[in-house]
Amino acid sequence: MKFKLAAQDKLSKARAGEIATDHGTIQTPIFMPVGTAGTVKSVHQRELRDDIKAQIILGNTYHLYLRPGLDVIEKAGGLHKFNGWERPILTDSGGYQVYSLTEVRKIKEEGVTFRSHIDGSKHLFTPENVMDTQRTIGADIIMAFDECTPYPCDYNYARKSLDMTHRWLKRCIDRFDNTESKYGYSQTLFPIVQGSVYKDLRKKSAEFIAEQNREGNAIGGLSVGEPAEEMYAMTEVVCDILPYEKPRYLMGVGTPINILENIALGIDMFDCVMPTRNARNGMLFTRNGIINIKNEKWKDDFSPIDPDSDLYSDLVYSKAYLRHLIHSKEILGAQIASLHNLHFYLWLVKEAREKIISGEFYEWKNKMVKVLGQRL
Amino acid sequence: MKFKLAAQDKLSKARAGEIATDHGTIQTPIFMPVGTAGTVKSVHQRELRDDIKAQIILGNTYHLYLRPGLDVIEKAGGLHKFNGWERPILTDSGGYQVYSLTEVRKIKEEGVTFRSHIDGSKHLFTPENVMDTQRTIGADIIMAFDECTPYPCDYNYARKSLDMTHRWLKRCIDRFDNTESKYGYSQTLFPIVQGSVYKDLRKKSAEFIAEQNREGNAIGGLSVGEPAEEMYAMTEVVCDILPYEKPRYLMGVGTPINILENIALGIDMFDCVMPTRNARNGMLFTRNGIINIKNEKWKDDFSPIDPDSDLYSDLVYSKAYLRHLIHSKEILGAQIASLHNLHFYLWLVKEAREKIISGEFYEWKNKMVKVLGQRL
Ligand SMILES: [Zn+2]
Ligand SMILES: [Zn+2]
Repeated sequence: MKFKLAAQDKLSKARAGEIATDHGTIQTPIFMPVGTAGTVKSVHQRELRDDIKAQIILGNTYHLYLRPGLDVIEKAGGLHKFNGWERPILTDSGGYQVYSLTEVRKIKEEGVTFRSHIDGSKHLFTPENVMDTQRTIGADIIMAFDECTPYPCDYNYARKSLDMTHRWLKRCIDRFDNTESKYGYSQTLFPIVQGSVYKDLRKKSAEFIAEQNREGNAIGGLSVGEPAEEMYAMTEVVCDILPYEKPRYLMGVGTPINILENIALGIDMFDCVMPTRNARNGMLFTRNGIINIKNEKWKDDFSPIDPDSDLYSDLVYSKAYLRHLIHSKEILGAQIASLHNLHFYLWLVKEAREKIISGEFYEWKNKMVKVLGQRL
Repeated sequence: MKFKLAAQDKLSKARAGEIATDHGTIQTPIFMPVGTAGTVKSVHQRELRDDIKAQIILGNTYHLYLRPGLDVIEKAGGLHKFNGWERPILTDSGGYQVYSLTEVRKIKEEGVTFRSHIDGSKHLFTPENVMDTQRTIGADIIMAFDECTPYPCDYNYARKSLDMTHRWLKRCIDRFDNTESKYGYSQTLFPIVQGSVYKDLRKKSAEFIAEQNREGNAIGGLSVGEPAEEMYAMTEVVCDILPYEKPRYLMGVGTPINILENIALGIDMFDCVMPTRNARNGMLFTRNGIINIKNEKWKDDFSPIDPDSDLYSDLVYSKAYLRHLIHSKEILGAQIASLHNLHFYLWLVKEAREKIISGEFYEWKNKMVKVLGQRL
């Protein structure tokens, strides 16, 4: 992996760059659609590539490990071959899902034992086996196995958890550096800054992560329920410490406003289930604000879903039709709304990048954050 | 509507033709994908047109009447404008859903009272108001309001029901002929032959329906649980009576084998939920037989879903990937399998048409019915 900075905003810490991987380049800042179980829900790979113009997607190690399972993915020749997505892929470490989806689990120094949410079977994730798993899945960028603390989290728990996350990171790096890619292209490992909403812990973690000297770095444990201002405060502290010349990935964030504010603080990469999950419930993000398509007011609004968009489905389907589909729980409703939201998120980061390059980012960002949260 | 016969098979009653409507022409024999609530489940209109190459789709009056409701469809300018499908549409009369989906109903001479399966509200369908409803929906081909008898059905019930269906037909024709299309293009009304599995009733009904001298005719009340041989026997009796120079539509049929056998008996038009409904459960129809993609045997079969197909999604996704998606209840699985099955059904009727024109239909049909039912 190579990262090249292309431009730096004068009035903020926003920057434009380019990440080169063996599956192609990614222009940053970038949003990564979440492809939980090897599919971005309700979106064809062809649509992701040609309509949404996604540059990288995310896969969830926890889900892929349980189903289809590592044997199938390895026989396929890795996730790219399995799902037919030829551009870059990033996988998370599975930790987040273990903590949020499974009920019976135990966090020990060795790792985490949990029961599958599918069949109740018992499993153990360790820093070492999660590296092996991500080698087998074959993502271009893989993530360290950490503990993602909940919000709120008491200081002592956060401190102890952080120390373990750092010890786990050493084990991840050790395993990663002593194993090889299985499919002939290179993989890179991003460590993750934790520390809940405590500045001193975040600072300590960022310093430790920076010292590891990996090709890129991530910030985890945010967007878990804390106020946006706390999130931004943590991002700011951490971005001041993480190396300038390496990509910074803020995990699981967030709303369109969160994305713009964090770009302004120096973040390069984002992922979030919000555009697809909220789409399935009829919430549409637009450059003028948020539409709840289920509302009565759209019942006989036959204007295009998004006249400002250049996405075919935003133009050929009407708001009234989409409202009908979502109310009727028709699959096509999820498809149309997901396409819209993902296309909008990709448009947003592309626009941000162009504004950074043209020197207009800060003003544009301040204007956008005023309208993006409006309810239409 | 105009129907033009293009070819007649020598060894069977199969024929090739062309139906011209104000929304374009339809090459027969044809299969019509079912678009229940104004959407063919999990398929984009762009995919229907460009990938599946559907020539006409079906809408369900019962569903559209309840949701989005006639006020919305009329304000949109009809169903074509509402859902963005610009080619021909056929709507059923709503009767079938009233009998199969609602529990509280009462069939009287006036019409049928029922309660909505959505909110329990009470409604009355009569021959007259169902004509008005289909005028408002604006399909190119609309269907008479009839009683679709269940299977088995005792002779006396079937006879009495048929008489009422014929009286209702007179009322349908009366209302239809005394009203006008609402959107500037023409609509045509097909009457429906009923009579359960009783040859004398079917004969009597076919004669009555033929006498009405409409532009096309339909056969209902089959594919409701009777053995295939009984279905074919009824189709044969009826096709001998219905006018040769008008299109014949066999409602709600069926499997690929049913379709070929009925084409051989002189049927021109088909519709069925089977390709889409079974797709969502992982059943794929192919020219070599039936695949249950959930089976263990496809777990690590990384060959394309259908190497014989020219559909992009049949070629870029593997059987193992589709199996994973269906097992994981991922929406993309329903999308891919529905595309496949609909594409296959449209391929089957197109192939049948070409064989009729080239004079090879009968032999090809007999060869195909031997393999289409095989379990792969
Ligand atoms: Zn999120
Ligand atoms: Zn059927």
